Amino acid sequence: MTTLMNPRWNGQFSCFDLVAKTDDCTRSIIRVADLEIGGNDFVVMAGPCAVESESQLMQTAEAVAEAGARVLRGGAYKPRSSPYAFQGLGVEGLRLLRKAREATGLAIITEVMSEEDVGLIAEYADIMQVGTRSMENYALLEALGKCGRPVLLKRGMTATLEELLRSAQIIAMSGNPDIILCERGIRTFETATRNTLDIAAVPVLKAVSHLPVIVDPSHAAGVRSLVPILSRAAAVVGADGLLVEVHPCPEKALSDGNQSLTFAEFRRMMGDLQPYLDLQQPLRQLRPQLVAAGGAD
Amino acid sequence: MTTLMNPRWNGQFSCFDLVAKTDDCTRSIIRVADLEIGGNDFVVMAGPCAVESESQLMQTAEAVAEAGARVLRGGAYKPRSSPYAFQGLGVEGLRLLRKAREATGLAIITEVMSEEDVGLIAEYADIMQVGTRSMENYALLEALGKCGRPVLLKRGMTATLEELLRSAQIIAMSGNPDIILCERGIRTFETATRNTLDIAAVPVLKAVSHLPVIVDPSHAAGVRSLVPILSRAAAVVGADGLLVEVHPCPEKALSDGNQSLTFAEFRRMMGDLQPYLDLQQPLRQLRPQLVAAGGAD
Amino acid sequence: MTTLMNPRWNGQFSCFDLVAKTDDCTRSIIRVADLEIGGNDFVVMAGPCAVESESQLMQTAEAVAEAGARVLRGGAYKPRSSPYAFQGLGVEGLRLLRKAREATGLAIITEVMSEEDVGLIAEYADIMQVGTRSMENYALLEALGKCGRPVLLKRGMTATLEELLRSAQIIAMSGNPDIILCERGIRTFETATRNTLDIAAVPVLKAVSHLPVIVDPSHAAGVRSLVPILSRAAAVVGADGLLVEVHPCPEKALSDGNQSLTFAEFRRMMGDLQPYLDLQQPLRQLRPQLVAAGGAD
Amino acid sequence: MTTLMNPRWNGQFSCFDLVAKTDDCTRSIIRVADLEIGGNDFVVMAGPCAVESESQLMQTAEAVAEAGARVLRGGAYKPRSSPYAFQGLGVEGLRLLRKAREATGLAIITEVMSEEDVGLIAEYADIMQVGTRSMENYALLEALGKCGRPVLLKRGMTATLEELLRSAQIIAMSGNPDIILCERGIRTFETATRNTLDIAAVPVLKAVSHLPVIVDPSHAAGVRSLVPILSRAAAVVGADGLLVEVHPCPEKALSDGNQSLTFAEFRRMMGDLQPYLDLQQPLRQLRPQLVAAGGAD
Repeated sequence: MTTLMNPRWNGQFSCFDLVAKTDDCTRSIIRVADLEIGGNDFVVMAGPCAVESESQLMQTAEAVAEAGARVLRGGAYKPRSSPYAFQGLGVEGLRLLRKAREATGLAIITEVMSEEDVGLIAEYADIMQVGTRSMENYALLEALGKCGRPVLLKRGMTATLEELLRSAQIIAMSGNPDIILCERGIRTFETATRNTLDIAAVPVLKAVSHLPVIVDPSHAAGVRSLVPILSRAAAVVGADGLLVEVHPCPEKALSDGNQSLTFAEFRRMMGDLQPYLDLQQPLRQLRPQLVAAGGAD
Repeated sequence: MTTLMNPRWNGQFSCFDLVAKTDDCTRSIIRVADLEIGGNDFVVMAGPCAVESESQLMQTAEAVAEAGARVLRGGAYKPRSSPYAFQGLGVEGLRLLRKAREATGLAIITEVMSEEDVGLIAEYADIMQVGTRSMENYALLEALGKCGRPVLLKRGMTATLEELLRSAQIIAMSGNPDIILCERGIRTFETATRNTLDIAAVPVLKAVSHLPVIVDPSHAAGVRSLVPILSRAAAVVGADGLLVEVHPCPEKALSDGNQSLTFAEFRRMMGDLQPYLDLQQPLRQLRPQLVAAGGAD
Repeated sequence: MTTLMNPRWNGQFSCFDLVAKTDDCTRSIIRVADLEIGGNDFVVMAGPCAVESESQLMQTAEAVAEAGARVLRGGAYKPRSSPYAFQGLGVEGLRLLRKAREATGLAIITEVMSEEDVGLIAEYADIMQVGTRSMENYALLEALGKCGRPVLLKRGMTATLEELLRSAQIIAMSGNPDIILCERGIRTFETATRNTLDIAAVPVLKAVSHLPVIVDPSHAAGVRSLVPILSRAAAVVGADGLLVEVHPCPEKALSDGNQSLTFAEFRRMMGDLQPYLDLQQPLRQLRPQLVAAGGAD
Repeated sequence: MTTLMNPRWNGQFSCFDLVAKTDDCTRSIIRVADLEIGGNDFVVMAGPCAVESESQLMQTAEAVAEAGARVLRGGAYKPRSSPYAFQGLGVEGLRLLRKAREATGLAIITEVMSEEDVGLIAEYADIMQVGTRSMENYALLEALGKCGRPVLLKRGMTATLEELLRSAQIIAMSGNPDIILCERGIRTFETATRNTLDIAAVPVLKAVSHLPVIVDPSHAAGVRSLVPILSRAAAVVGADGLLVEVHPCPEKALSDGNQSLTFAEFRRMMGDLQPYLDLQQPLRQLRPQLVAAGGAD
């Protein structure tokens, strides 16, 4: 992909020396349990928007694990799209996530919104998620630089890629090189989708930075029928994985039900993705061990 | 793809009755020579931004035809990104396009910017292209409704999909049902690419309208290294074809050189696309006759 | 206002040599009847969105003239915000505008959307209006360069000031130096107003160009209660006039009723403006002759 | 201003019951020392972007106080527009601000970026400033709900007014009703200014909320020559005050030098504003005591 580099990008991003790609640097591979994010694994992180109850989380964890996901997502602390919206179960949610990890072997990713919560959440999570509203919360970024866990950094709602890399640089400068960039759609004038997935962000970020890049098709689309299609697009442009919302009963979800897949839809999507991944990157597998055992689905 | 329909889209677009998809309508197939745009062909339209000279055009036509393109693009009348920019060869450009068609069998697509030019251009072109700056030029749209040629309608620079369909409806109301929609990227705050390709526009448009949808990756990207990657994304989300800029010597192009592919790059891109198309839509072929004869590349 | 110039603007706009301000150039004054647009008159252009009937137009013309307007606005040819929306009375509308001019002495401004209509409309109108959707209709701009009438050029919906000046340059290059720039709000993510009035556009345009600048508060606001407030802001930042929608009975208007002022509201607004104008530019008068005769209101 | 209310705004904002205007509520007046923000004072907050040194701050404090400012602004903790940019003097900056208050009688406003700093900054500041990047930092908003100081809440870079009011509601729900809203320009495609001042935001916010609204013309403009003009516009649309950057020597400022006024420019601007304020709101004074003593300038 060296031909992707063009002088404009080079000039624009070179001051972010800890995260920018240089001629002689190797790609970052973030190790989480036995996963290599940014390496040969195509890592699907799936689960509910918010942890709502033990049965909701455990059911989902088992279903997504069986379908080939490697990481369980689920919010214990939620940003508030309304002052009256559900704000998450807090520590109780973290405990349920740990329980789900024990039951399924899935790694855990969950959002942190406040620097005061960093220490606590780092005890439970394998990957710390920074939401779109927090991309420029510098106090939080600095605290994450010292948390000892990989960080998934979501692009701000109208942030440029340069601004995303600036925030990544701040985490890295604060001591933490294990950063995963996440394209999740940007705000545009289009209203047919919740956000506009900037699919070109994936190859641009991979050309100018050595960090892994994953795509969140759920928040980009805002409607579940588009999620498998955008996931396919992400796979063929070189994304290192996905962050997908899945719920046992989307119409009853406390948040983001419209964009959450059912278990059956998620399974179907995972089955659909593998041949595209095979084409795109022959060495990369959705779930190597299952494929070796006869196919994921 | 019926599951894609959601009530919001339905409500938003249903007033455009001539172009909106209904439960019992069939997809539009636009016939140009032996091509079926919106049918089983994945139609690649390729060529220079502007017709510059006979040798430039004939060389390009032969190269893109050999690589599997079915339609030759080339501007004879150019919108002016600067008051001093090259404005095209005019009628002489149209004559060269006709000559290229005779030599290669490619169909011709070229831009029309003024209702006064509609009659003249319709004598030479197989498909009339409406540029992003003209999407709301209603006098032009009405004239194209009576021109007797299929129209490729590009999305306005910051237009919503609803506004794109409104313009399509106006062409249809004026008498011409043969309309091809074209996603070419929208203006956003991102500067790493010329525009932001709204990849979700393809499945949304195909869910709410029966018209074919093609993607222009060249204007979306603004840089040639991204064109093959965005083309791949377009192919796997269900686009019916591509509109791609190709030039014998991009660094000498009078316009859009940065985003134009060389002949070799175009050939490589076409070879790369076919397996993705095979997966996406088994009945659809990039160029059936060549594949039958042993593969295009 | 020489201190307004900054090097960035200079570099950005200097290639538009016919419309850019230089150290030794004088401001353009566009003469229409006895008006000096860009000179000592603060010119208020008022009237209905669309010419709907003789009584609607004549009543409005008399009311706005009495309140101090100097130019009557009214669309005979309308852009279509919906394919089924009212498209204007056409030539009949032009005849009514001429009749209103004869009755009131007001000059006439009306929109032209097609280069084919330029000749006809120029017979009736004193000022040719280019709407936001036509700012980049180059064929139209070139035709207006030869029409022999001043042109009011509205900023495109998401156009930059550089792009606005580029379009002005094209009209000037085509032979017509009499151009009035119009800020009418730009599309942003804000939904509480129809558009976002870019109030800084007025001093920036006056710093970088010698052309007059007027403000359309009606399309910016989209709601009538804001129109007098935005008009006041326009007056104090140096605008040369206003373009305001007024209707005898806004709730029955065929278009833009929400943003049209009643006669009483328009009268009140005009009375409110004069003291601000007195402060802003002592030599400039809303309506000199009336003031001399004892005050406009 | 009751006529400003329209049904759409009403519906849009009514769920923010603690900050929304209702038929029988009175406007909030925030008392800081002897100031009444939102009442009869037009409160100008002025000072450097960042506290850089004792002499820089003390000189500026005296100059702005003499010219009629009532509040001193100055950042001790700075958001980082680059990872290498000056990040402020921290506690030392707070001490200098306190010293400047003692010397001049000016109240102090300074930015807080982290919930961990809330307690400390509240010991020094009279008003706590929330920057544009923190508008959706909910942990910070909740901490400010309990800080015992008025909060100035800046609009996010691309936030809608609804989102601004949502954040205000969260502060109010957390226990603090003393909130000042601040329009500081939004990100648009225009590049001639740093941001686009949404001047209509002032009357809209005053129509839908009972909270005071002030305008930051410095960040909106990004260039000092526009600051006095935008301030004038703010004054005549009903803003309750201004937040303006002033520096003893802008070209040597560590941040935002381009948009900072010199002392002389600030004095001239204040003198220019008073007559507009007199017109706009006869009971409101820029600085009553000085005017009574013979005029501020």
